[in-house]
Amino acid sequence: MKPIAPSSGINRRVLLSTLALLPALSGALLPVSAPAQTPGGLLPSWNDGAATQAIFDFVRATVDRSSPSYVFPQDRIAVFDQDGTLWVEHPMYTQVVYCLERVPAVAAKKPELKNVEPFKTVLSGNREAMAKLSMRDLEKILAATLTGMSVEEFNAEAKKWMETAKHPRWNRPYTELVYRPMLEVLSYLRDNAYKTYIVTGGGQDFVRVYAEKVYGILPEQVIGTAGGTRFAYASDGKPYLTKEPKLILNDNNAGKPEGIHLMIGRRPYAAFGNSTGDRQMLEWTAAGAGARLKMLVLHDDATREYAYGPAQGLPDSKVGTFTPALYDEAKSRGWTVISMKNDWRRIFAFE
Amino acid sequence: MKPIAPSSGINRRVLLSTLALLPALSGALLPVSAPAQTPGGLLPSWNDGAATQAIFDFVRATVDRSSPSYVFPQDRIAVFDQDGTLWVEHPMYTQVVYCLERVPAVAAKKPELKNVEPFKTVLSGNREAMAKLSMRDLEKILAATLTGMSVEEFNAEAKKWMETAKHPRWNRPYTELVYRPMLEVLSYLRDNAYKTYIVTGGGQDFVRVYAEKVYGILPEQVIGTAGGTRFAYASDGKPYLTKEPKLILNDNNAGKPEGIHLMIGRRPYAAFGNSTGDRQMLEWTAAGAGARLKMLVLHDDATREYAYGPAQGLPDSKVGTFTPALYDEAKSRGWTVISMKNDWRRIFAFE
Repeated sequence: MKPIAPSSGINRRVLLSTLALLPALSGALLPVSAPAQTPGGLLPSWNDGAATQAIFDFVRATVDRSSPSYVFPQDRIAVFDQDGTLWVEHPMYTQVVYCLERVPAVAAKKPELKNVEPFKTVLSGNREAMAKLSMRDLEKILAATLTGMSVEEFNAEAKKWMETAKHPRWNRPYTELVYRPMLEVLSYLRDNAYKTYIVTGGGQDFVRVYAEKVYGILPEQVIGTAGGTRFAYASDGKPYLTKEPKLILNDNNAGKPEGIHLMIGRRPYAAFGNSTGDRQMLEWTAAGAGARLKMLVLHDDATREYAYGPAQGLPDSKVGTFTPALYDEAKSRGWTVISMKNDWRRIFAFE
Repeated sequence: MKPIAPSSGINRRVLLSTLALLPALSGALLPVSAPAQTPGGLLPSWNDGAATQAIFDFVRATVDRSSPSYVFPQDRIAVFDQDGTLWVEHPMYTQVVYCLERVPAVAAKKPELKNVEPFKTVLSGNREAMAKLSMRDLEKILAATLTGMSVEEFNAEAKKWMETAKHPRWNRPYTELVYRPMLEVLSYLRDNAYKTYIVTGGGQDFVRVYAEKVYGILPEQVIGTAGGTRFAYASDGKPYLTKEPKLILNDNNAGKPEGIHLMIGRRPYAAFGNSTGDRQMLEWTAAGAGARLKMLVLHDDATREYAYGPAQGLPDSKVGTFTPALYDEAKSRGWTVISMKNDWRRIFAFE
């Protein structure tokens, strides 16, 4: 069986190069700008523009009963990538940080790992050496830290970590690094009877731990890279499920529409992403009849967040890659590119 | 890859022995009994008794805010097996009938199959010969009729078939052979904010075709035996998903709690089944804290429907097997056994 690799979409170079940079990224809080209102005040963290117009037009077209693109409430499905779309993905996917930080606890339980690579390197804390870990090494770390325990044990561990871990730049819990403009879109769509789903390359079980609290999205509406579980009985006869190192769904790229079919069974009307890993999901959404909303978040705000992708003219070599080719596809197909710098008046709730 | 086998829970002997009996099973409609009311009239097709009491007690315990077993609305999950629990499974799983009846159309498109077993035998219409088909033969038939087409093509074919195919005994569409008492339970639970799921050994895509219309259950709330899909582009650039002969989830036995974890991500509060294939799902539900409803439908009404399982003292050799061992487990653990004969005043809407 292929080992589970919830981070299949991650680019090793970024992960590793940023490992070394972590301390340098810590920074002071950014100045707060006063919030103002868009028409109707529905998306107060947004500046008026093509992006808000696309959202309002889509909702009107699918919710107004007299519209030729009217969609019955029970059919209203909207899907959102997570990393880089709903929350910060730099300098490293949060889940990868979790896995690296879980290594000492795993090694304490399985001391035989302490002298085995890649665990030895992670335990050394030597960032230069960690920067040389291979993708296969990372997969071993993910398998060791995400599988082999009961689903309840995993949930408890991940929940506890999320409550204490902090992002190196803002020194705040990762769960505060969600994009307020996107939370507003989630609420606005839900207020219009849209069922909102996360469709992430990240681990399904990991994201489910905090998605309800952070995004108002229930576990069954989180689709992610998923491993199998194994049902068995404890010595007292009580059944339990163990997380297995068996990949069921690699929810990246083509895996996103495939995962949507598996978990939802019909085509979304709205899709939000920020990288090539979301391309097929947007294409699949766009290929449906009637009004369909396709949006990509462009990280072009080096001051308030980060700038990477076509905004920086960078080649296809960054985590959460928004390549020039994807940018061109978006433009040629009429998808809406959201500029963090220009479209978002306010990025985080704590600003 | 293992070929998809949505009928893994099926017992070949029943399938094949009943193939020969099909014409003999056609019968006249049964007499209609006047409906009466249970307390409150919430479950009018039920006779008052331990079964209705268990349902009412469970709902009160989980919905009343002052109850120690109160469950928040967003956590209310109820799961239902389909075949033999929500609709008739005799003399053959409806989906298997579909697959057998699709063989001529598949062979017309792929003439090379006409002289290849098991397709040759199915095309011959010789029920004696069909009765000798092996489980492996059946899997070939399922793979040939359930995979290899786009998801839209499959949906259209299955929908069309469901609209015209009829059950041999009642000469009515299969979709009319749903148990009215169970439809009432579905509605009653939904009225109390329970999200109702089907968790079936049948094919997920197949059941999704009619579940909304028949049960009021949306596609994303149908969990079943599921195959993979493959995302690709047509010559015009339009993306499509092809159903692949690759098994992702065998949603029977231990596969049911595993499938529930994959698709819902948390433990149900209520579970309904009728066979050993549902045992682990009920055990998994029962193992949670607080009030949990565990119910098994016993087919003990040979006049109005069928009698099989422990009601008949039958050994473990029938489709949808409700074995004596399962009956004993239900009794010893305090699960509720629903007697179709005694607990259901009325079985079908057309009675």
